[in-house]
Amino acid sequence: MAELTHFDEKGQAVMVDVTEKGITTREAIARGHVRMRPETLDLILEGRAKKGDVLGVARLAGIMAAKKTPDLIPLAHPLPLSSVKLDFFPDREQSLIGIQATVKVTSRTGVEMEALTAVAVAALTVYDMCKAVDREMVVSEIRLMEKSGGRSGVFKRIED
Amino acid sequence: MAELTHFDEKGQAVMVDVTEKGITTREAIARGHVRMRPETLDLILEGRAKKGDVLGVARLAGIMAAKKTPDLIPLAHPLPLSSVKLDFFPDREQSLIGIQATVKVTSRTGVEMEALTAVAVAALTVYDMCKAVDREMVVSEIRLMEKSGGRSGVFKRIED
Amino acid sequence: MAELTHFDEKGQAVMVDVTEKGITTREAIARGHVRMRPETLDLILEGRAKKGDVLGVARLAGIMAAKKTPDLIPLAHPLPLSSVKLDFFPDREQSLIGIQATVKVTSRTGVEMEALTAVAVAALTVYDMCKAVDREMVVSEIRLMEKSGGRSGVFKRIED
Amino acid sequence: MAELTHFDEKGQAVMVDVTEKGITTREAIARGHVRMRPETLDLILEGRAKKGDVLGVARLAGIMAAKKTPDLIPLAHPLPLSSVKLDFFPDREQSLIGIQATVKVTSRTGVEMEALTAVAVAALTVYDMCKAVDREMVVSEIRLMEKSGGRSGVFKRIED
Amino acid sequence: MAELTHFDEKGQAVMVDVTEKGITTREAIARGHVRMRPETLDLILEGRAKKGDVLGVARLAGIMAAKKTPDLIPLAHPLPLSSVKLDFFPDREQSLIGIQATVKVTSRTGVEMEALTAVAVAALTVYDMCKAVDREMVVSEIRLMEKSGGRSGVFKRIED
Amino acid sequence: MAELTHFDEKGQAVMVDVTEKGITTREAIARGHVRMRPETLDLILEGRAKKGDVLGVARLAGIMAAKKTPDLIPLAHPLPLSSVKLDFFPDREQSLIGIQATVKVTSRTGVEMEALTAVAVAALTVYDMCKAVDREMVVSEIRLMEKSGGRSGVFKRIED
Repeated sequence: MAELTHFDEKGQAVMVDVTEKGITTREAIARGHVRMRPETLDLILEGRAKKGDVLGVARLAGIMAAKKTPDLIPLAHPLPLSSVKLDFFPDREQSLIGIQATVKVTSRTGVEMEALTAVAVAALTVYDMCKAVDREMVVSEIRLMEKSGGRSGVFKRIED
Repeated sequence: MAELTHFDEKGQAVMVDVTEKGITTREAIARGHVRMRPETLDLILEGRAKKGDVLGVARLAGIMAAKKTPDLIPLAHPLPLSSVKLDFFPDREQSLIGIQATVKVTSRTGVEMEALTAVAVAALTVYDMCKAVDREMVVSEIRLMEKSGGRSGVFKRIED
Repeated sequence: MAELTHFDEKGQAVMVDVTEKGITTREAIARGHVRMRPETLDLILEGRAKKGDVLGVARLAGIMAAKKTPDLIPLAHPLPLSSVKLDFFPDREQSLIGIQATVKVTSRTGVEMEALTAVAVAALTVYDMCKAVDREMVVSEIRLMEKSGGRSGVFKRIED
Repeated sequence: MAELTHFDEKGQAVMVDVTEKGITTREAIARGHVRMRPETLDLILEGRAKKGDVLGVARLAGIMAAKKTPDLIPLAHPLPLSSVKLDFFPDREQSLIGIQATVKVTSRTGVEMEALTAVAVAALTVYDMCKAVDREMVVSEIRLMEKSGGRSGVFKRIED
Repeated sequence: MAELTHFDEKGQAVMVDVTEKGITTREAIARGHVRMRPETLDLILEGRAKKGDVLGVARLAGIMAAKKTPDLIPLAHPLPLSSVKLDFFPDREQSLIGIQATVKVTSRTGVEMEALTAVAVAALTVYDMCKAVDREMVVSEIRLMEKSGGRSGVFKRIED
Repeated sequence: MAELTHFDEKGQAVMVDVTEKGITTREAIARGHVRMRPETLDLILEGRAKKGDVLGVARLAGIMAAKKTPDLIPLAHPLPLSSVKLDFFPDREQSLIGIQATVKVTSRTGVEMEALTAVAVAALTVYDMCKAVDREMVVSEIRLMEKSGGRSGVFKRIED
């Protein structure tokens, strides 16, 4: 039966021992979004040009957060990230901003948590910058889309 | 018309000047959840007793993350938090774990971002600890529920 | 004779005891600049519109660095900053970008170091983002311009 | 034409992808100085023996800051530094203290920013420790002197 | 019966709510020591003058660690420390270096953990700097000596 | 004669240059304990089941502290830890809780400081969580037990 790898046989939390795992190039892609009122989305999209670049700030926050992952996620390994990239996809129809983070490393373990953390903190930063005009924004659907390079093979999330 | 307070008149990002705001006791409550397969939820709920306390680890991660908010959210103010509390609400029917964070401070500005950050990092920690058995978990619906103590009065989110 | 306040009578470094100092609103303004080739300055100024916002990134780095001052400057006090603002002044004649940081706090001690640190890190970030095209940029003339609100009265730097 | 490497083709900030770069031993040397009144310089130089070791504190601050570079410079990569060294060169004639940092790593990218950050923070620490006697000190001429080990070959700054 | 205050009625870890506690000036004094071979102690004591100031480095490490306490101790509150002081007491007879930390704050909760953390990290730093010559050093007897300023009154440890 | 490796020939602190050292798998084991009143020990041991898991919190604090070692110990190298494990050994006879940390890395330098730091912070966390009922607990006997994988060969502490 499936077991939680972050606990030892006594049920005690451990930083999983990756000493024996191979050093390979690994990549993870995560996504999420911030839902908001149409007026808030307008403000962000106009602002990009004139009044202040909400997404530019959120992008940096996400990149920096990826580097802080081992400080935030208790059992995460410190990793020498070799690439972090954030993309935003405004969607007027659904009145949301989609966020995607792509993280790479050449190391003994993967960067799913780094990609997910980058998305979460970028989304929270969008909230922070717009909360004075829209307290009801929702950060949602943060999930792993793809992962490759590790022993467990390639993972691709299937969505319809 | 509504304006984004985190930019000055030239559209430049600033840490909002709160020097003139009053020192009051402020509280914020945020919520979110992690959706997962029923088997993953079982594993977490059993594990609490025997195999490793996923929610205990996530709770600590959330509390510590609340303290790191000004490091993560670029324009957030550093604040001397006076209380941080995390609660988890497993829901077998919807196959998810609800997370609620309550944060208090006596200060010139509020703690919405601290509460939201605590929920997000607790949720990501649940993901981290269970990802070996369920890569498809989704962190979702992170939102502000209540906020009080500031000049803008009491906010209560209305949900149906 | 003048004494260095950060050492005790035995010459040992101490975090100066400010317990008895009054809580007042304090402000500090610091400045500095990054000298560069005219072509580099052009690239930054054009880029602002089209190719990437060097100064937007540097501004955020400066604001976030102000919050990290007590982690960087060994004997600095942790302070609940109430405002941080960064301004950039491109100067084509001298081929440099001037940087000014304004920091406020209501506390027992001042924020000179926070303002100076914000300028230094914003300047280093400009260097980082342009170093591929101009390794010879120089970060220079980081200095305190004004300081007010403390027991030692108002300081204004006189320059000609 | 020259391009800023820290932005992608849409002008969005990215942590540059170094996955494909070779792992080599890299070294960077940076310099800067703190100008001050002759009396302040005297106080520091005497203090070294008797009243408190300003340069000893600044040296440690610089070494520790080199390790914090990826937290400070938004798009810098986290790197496993293998050596950090700070040297001070008091100059009574020009009434300043010169600072030099030498940083090494065996990695996919260089350590210019680490060396420059070490110099800047060491200089700011000198300012902090002496500001009670000389508010007008100036941190200046922070620049890269040498860099080697990367694909772009050896760089040596030419000064006269 | 005595209860552990860091858990709520369900046994869940919380950052204790201090919102209602009074703001008072609080002080804590902690002590500990590093036992070592007599030759190691000699090396440290000579070094102070000539070969490198182990205790100067350890003092700074202790002061900086006091500021990092809320990052290290999961349920500790972030506090605006107003004073941190480290003293060392070499004892040739017992072949050890005693360490004492005194920390002050004006706040809603005390600074015992800050004083204890400062002693522990100063002691570990002594170990780090001397481990090449004496791996068998022992960090020991880290304890609270005094505490005052809080609702629970004055505490003074009685030792014989 | 023995020399302190963390100082150069002028007695200046340096981060030791490990560039030329080989990359090998290294392991360190450290131990320490927290002495307390029998009633406090009872409270912790009962609590594990019912009232709050002191040792679970301390375990996480220790694991996270191992990752923060280069931030705490001024001259420590940043290292990509591959495993951190904490074990607790309650001892009713001596009325103490023993703590052991095991840390691994594949790198140019060892992880003694990481293991010792994990033990110290786990011990301080036990103190923090129980201090309301027993201020007189003592953190003691933090020491290196074993070390292997480096050029200096295997070290095993001999105790009787």
